[in-house]
Amino acid sequence: MKLNEFQNILEKKNCDFAVFYTADSSRINPNLFYFTGYSGIGILVVPKKHRPFLIAPQMEFQRAKKSSIKKVYSMEKKRFFESAHSIIKKNSIKTKNIAIDKNNFTLNSYKHFKRQFKKSKTKDIALECLKLRGRKTEKEVQILRKSCNYADNILQKTIKNFESFKTESEVSAFLEYETKKLGLELSFNPIIASGSNGSMPHYEPKNIKIKNGFCVIDFGVKYKGYCSDITRTIYIGKPSQKERGIYNLLLGIQEDSIKMVKNNIKCSGIYDFVCNKLGKYKNNFTHGLGHGVGIEIHEMPNLTLNSTDRIKDNMVFTIEPGVYFPNKFGIRIEDTILFKGRVKVLTRTSKHLLIV
Amino acid sequence: MKLNEFQNILEKKNCDFAVFYTADSSRINPNLFYFTGYSGIGILVVPKKHRPFLIAPQMEFQRAKKSSIKKVYSMEKKRFFESAHSIIKKNSIKTKNIAIDKNNFTLNSYKHFKRQFKKSKTKDIALECLKLRGRKTEKEVQILRKSCNYADNILQKTIKNFESFKTESEVSAFLEYETKKLGLELSFNPIIASGSNGSMPHYEPKNIKIKNGFCVIDFGVKYKGYCSDITRTIYIGKPSQKERGIYNLLLGIQEDSIKMVKNNIKCSGIYDFVCNKLGKYKNNFTHGLGHGVGIEIHEMPNLTLNSTDRIKDNMVFTIEPGVYFPNKFGIRIEDTILFKGRVKVLTRTSKHLLIV
Repeated sequence: MKLNEFQNILEKKNCDFAVFYTADSSRINPNLFYFTGYSGIGILVVPKKHRPFLIAPQMEFQRAKKSSIKKVYSMEKKRFFESAHSIIKKNSIKTKNIAIDKNNFTLNSYKHFKRQFKKSKTKDIALECLKLRGRKTEKEVQILRKSCNYADNILQKTIKNFESFKTESEVSAFLEYETKKLGLELSFNPIIASGSNGSMPHYEPKNIKIKNGFCVIDFGVKYKGYCSDITRTIYIGKPSQKERGIYNLLLGIQEDSIKMVKNNIKCSGIYDFVCNKLGKYKNNFTHGLGHGVGIEIHEMPNLTLNSTDRIKDNMVFTIEPGVYFPNKFGIRIEDTILFKGRVKVLTRTSKHLLIV
Repeated sequence: MKLNEFQNILEKKNCDFAVFYTADSSRINPNLFYFTGYSGIGILVVPKKHRPFLIAPQMEFQRAKKSSIKKVYSMEKKRFFESAHSIIKKNSIKTKNIAIDKNNFTLNSYKHFKRQFKKSKTKDIALECLKLRGRKTEKEVQILRKSCNYADNILQKTIKNFESFKTESEVSAFLEYETKKLGLELSFNPIIASGSNGSMPHYEPKNIKIKNGFCVIDFGVKYKGYCSDITRTIYIGKPSQKERGIYNLLLGIQEDSIKMVKNNIKCSGIYDFVCNKLGKYKNNFTHGLGHGVGIEIHEMPNLTLNSTDRIKDNMVFTIEPGVYFPNKFGIRIEDTILFKGRVKVLTRTSKHLLIV
């Protein structure tokens, strides 16, 4: 995606090329994937003017050849950056100023990199990449819509079957099975947090009986490498009037904050709105209001207290207020949203309190 | 694990404390988890003499309190290292020499870190941590045994049901469902590579009909945070004499290389042995022979051409020779092994060529 636009940025920043790497098959480099569609081990070099190329180890060569990058080299040297250096030299690319993504570059990789590019200056390109990826292309919007559709369908099937599950793990396993069966990946390990476990926003489901009370289900799939993200909180048993009241308060706030979204609005402003509306429950809201969604499950924009981001066309992000009462319960309601002239909610599963 | 041993290392390296962080809930910091059992967002500070402590954001505070670290602080400042700096100062801990893990520290995190610890010197502790984790404690060995048992059972159940699967994705979904149902995690996304897809060692299963011929199944679970890793290659249809021949050659080599393992043997020596035995197929073996297994799926020791590692007591690692014929097929046979005076194969699923 947006390779030309990125090369213009390199030109403006006076960088001869940018380099991205993934050394570990279990950790996708989001920018490398963004520019190539390749999720394996390797190095991507994007010169400011010439065609970009990939360097992949022999074992990954066939996969790399299937990426959107036409020029693929097999890693010839023992070390990643040694190979990169030799191929860059062969291609007569200058090495005076090199753009690197300092969010995805470890200190030890940098040491190896500097051994090869001793005299080069490096410039951080992390923010520029995040910004590029923050505003989706039409193709990405299509993929994200579909990713959200899949998440909706799987979540609804799971909720419909809810009475057949005994443990939190069974719910998680079912979500995952339905995801994998369709050839999709999870965006993240699903959160199934029943009863008092729901008070931990990042709780990991356990092989324990589902507790009565609220049950937070936070789930998303990856379709063609793009994440969706949705949370619904259902109720096992019979909610009290007070519990219903808190749920409906949160739901109203979630819906109102979605309605607030407009072009150029400050993300921190939407966050503030939610805090104010929560009134006495303000301190029970212990995380950000939302985050961009794309190749990574957390990307730009950030809808948090201190964010300086603003909503722009073609941003896809979550709105997910929650309230947590330690050792008691938690409630979170989350949708993935597209802004494009107006707000479009991409996750469509009902938000009425479902009682099982 | 091994916190005292680690504090002795800090003493020897003349470091006042070590600091580990995780900023992203989807990426476990293996050392932070090793020392704490905590897998969430936060910072771990291990002073060379005093009690270690965790700093966690408010939303993760309850989870952090359940870790093995008794002293847990709630993050009070906006930025991670700002909080860490203020708490370290309050605890009157010197900040002259700080140990950091440069394999798990990005350039941008380092920038934020240095803003707080301007005058401090940093020393890399990555290798020391890998070495500590490379030799498992009794407790870890127990957990790894169990992790391998689970992987065996789930894999065997999957193979038994193999005829009911139509697509690669269905096999992957079944493996994952059985894993999650037991409250376990995957070590990595399973590889189900049928027919010509098997020639890509890191192939990702697709929602396509399972092809005839060899089918590589590479799978592992995480039990209590510890990985297992096993690969079996089965055959769909009727193998030719030549195919049987290659399979049995590889199997013989895999078994012989396991028998070779003894105390203090060079890992590169075992790799060389396999290459020699492969004869004319040597160039079809395109990856390392094995890797340590623990909290991470790839850790010390490395069984590769250039490795300087040697096998020591209480190491747990894989032996996984493979041969790959581009656009034709691939075969890999992998076990997770414990060395403790003698070799013990922890993954016990049959390696006779199974024909479906």
